[in-house]
Amino acid sequence: MGKDKSQVREKNLFRAVDSPYLVPADGRFRLAKSPTKPPKDAPGKDATKDELARLVGKLDELQHMFYAYDHRALLLIFQAMDAAGKDSTIRAVLSGVNPAGCQVYSFKQPSKEELEHDFLWRTNVRLPERGRIGVFNRSYYEEVLIARVHPELLEPQHLPRGFDPKEIWPQRYASIRDMEKHLARNGTVILKFWLNVSWEEQRQRFLARLEEPEKNWKFESGDVAERAYWKDYMRAYQDALNETSRPWAPWYAIPADDKPHMRAAVADIVVRTLESLNLKYPKPATAERATFNKLKKQLEAEGG
Amino acid sequence: MGKDKSQVREKNLFRAVDSPYLVPADGRFRLAKSPTKPPKDAPGKDATKDELARLVGKLDELQHMFYAYDHRALLLIFQAMDAAGKDSTIRAVLSGVNPAGCQVYSFKQPSKEELEHDFLWRTNVRLPERGRIGVFNRSYYEEVLIARVHPELLEPQHLPRGFDPKEIWPQRYASIRDMEKHLARNGTVILKFWLNVSWEEQRQRFLARLEEPEKNWKFESGDVAERAYWKDYMRAYQDALNETSRPWAPWYAIPADDKPHMRAAVADIVVRTLESLNLKYPKPATAERATFNKLKKQLEAEGG
Repeated sequence: MGKDKSQVREKNLFRAVDSPYLVPADGRFRLAKSPTKPPKDAPGKDATKDELARLVGKLDELQHMFYAYDHRALLLIFQAMDAAGKDSTIRAVLSGVNPAGCQVYSFKQPSKEELEHDFLWRTNVRLPERGRIGVFNRSYYEEVLIARVHPELLEPQHLPRGFDPKEIWPQRYASIRDMEKHLARNGTVILKFWLNVSWEEQRQRFLARLEEPEKNWKFESGDVAERAYWKDYMRAYQDALNETSRPWAPWYAIPADDKPHMRAAVADIVVRTLESLNLKYPKPATAERATFNKLKKQLEAEGG
Repeated sequence: MGKDKSQVREKNLFRAVDSPYLVPADGRFRLAKSPTKPPKDAPGKDATKDELARLVGKLDELQHMFYAYDHRALLLIFQAMDAAGKDSTIRAVLSGVNPAGCQVYSFKQPSKEELEHDFLWRTNVRLPERGRIGVFNRSYYEEVLIARVHPELLEPQHLPRGFDPKEIWPQRYASIRDMEKHLARNGTVILKFWLNVSWEEQRQRFLARLEEPEKNWKFESGDVAERAYWKDYMRAYQDALNETSRPWAPWYAIPADDKPHMRAAVADIVVRTLESLNLKYPKPATAERATFNKLKKQLEAEGG
């Protein structure tokens, strides 16, 4: 944990926008102190919903310019315990955006082909192009979360024989840090959201899924069994966030017990991040401008 | 140049087999001292061809076991000046191998989609699966070779504005080292061959392409123009090989003026590398063995 060489600042790297929910890069993040509920002075439900609507409109504008600018990609990663609200947050924050500039991938159990590659391959293939927003609903972080809690999942990955089981997690953190730094150098802005739901709130949401017919489809029996591993998951999350939150690829630990607040908090960070990039619509070069003027006159002359 | 943190040994990493052509990891490789011709005491043409035939047969056997073993992938990278013999070496060394276990990709000018991603994306997508041999005829190394000699090629890559042109090559070396180390940790054995052809031998081969009708198709006018940048290319190769030859992802600088010697040297390194992996056919577990015996009896009983 703590400092590593990858923290040396490189001049052209994006830097995370500030937020009370930003996970620092110094390894001091403590999950037990990370709130699952909004602060006491947070605006009420209606004000929060209005704010979200404003942010969603703003995001659509910014995405349009981001697409035209075409020098960066945006990767949004969502990780959380079940029922924390990943799907509904993605829907609430990104529904206003032109789908032509936004690709959402949900990573479930890996396919046989994916298992035959290194653990970053299946997400690498789906990285967003410049000018586009890519959303990962779960991601390569599962490889240091669920795989750490259930190490038997490593078996079908056919790792080289003789690997040291104690080395694997630090090595995976290093692989992730290196890959994210590479992407950052080459223009991908990576924002990672951990939606922090409480043990009790998850119980309530599972109960709702069992009780309300229109929520039944979301319920999977296995999800309740995973609650037995809650502490192991929390340890895995705390380590992963500390090991991989960096100014150029920050984690934000968002309180998830109050959905409107969670969605507005995510939208706010995405919007402020895009604003911080100082995006501009590309301007034609002088030579091109002369052609533009000529063509404009030609088209005008065609009219009556 | 020189040492970096990535040189710390990790226990489960593959280690390069030795060879007079191995580029050391200490940054001391000097291209001007690297031979383009076989050593004086090298076997004659016929003996070399016999040796290649033996190695090609051996490679087919090893590949079969490699496929069954299924815990590692093999990535062979070929880089060279034009007419050094990349294509013919790939053909000569790998023609005996079952194509079901071997995928060759030639990377030419990147497509629009590829340019919209980071510079490692298009090769990442095509990485070999476990149990398979992947061959890259040119590779991501073009991004620190031709792109360095002709930096105008960076323009359509739409890098983030404000990047420092002096930082780009060290950053790209770091990205490549980090990615290769990640692959090595996860079981991909990477062998990189630089086919070292001399200025005079390239001239002779271009002349042959112009003079002999059955070689005309290989000639492209632009290739001769690139000879004007020979020194720049040599500097770029020397730097790239020094910056990225590591025990787990070695470069071999193979003399290329004598084709039979070059092919045998490459085949020898590939074969000895596979041998060093201590491959084994997987054995069924005890429980499985009992099932095997039962099924064997059943099939035997079916017969007259």
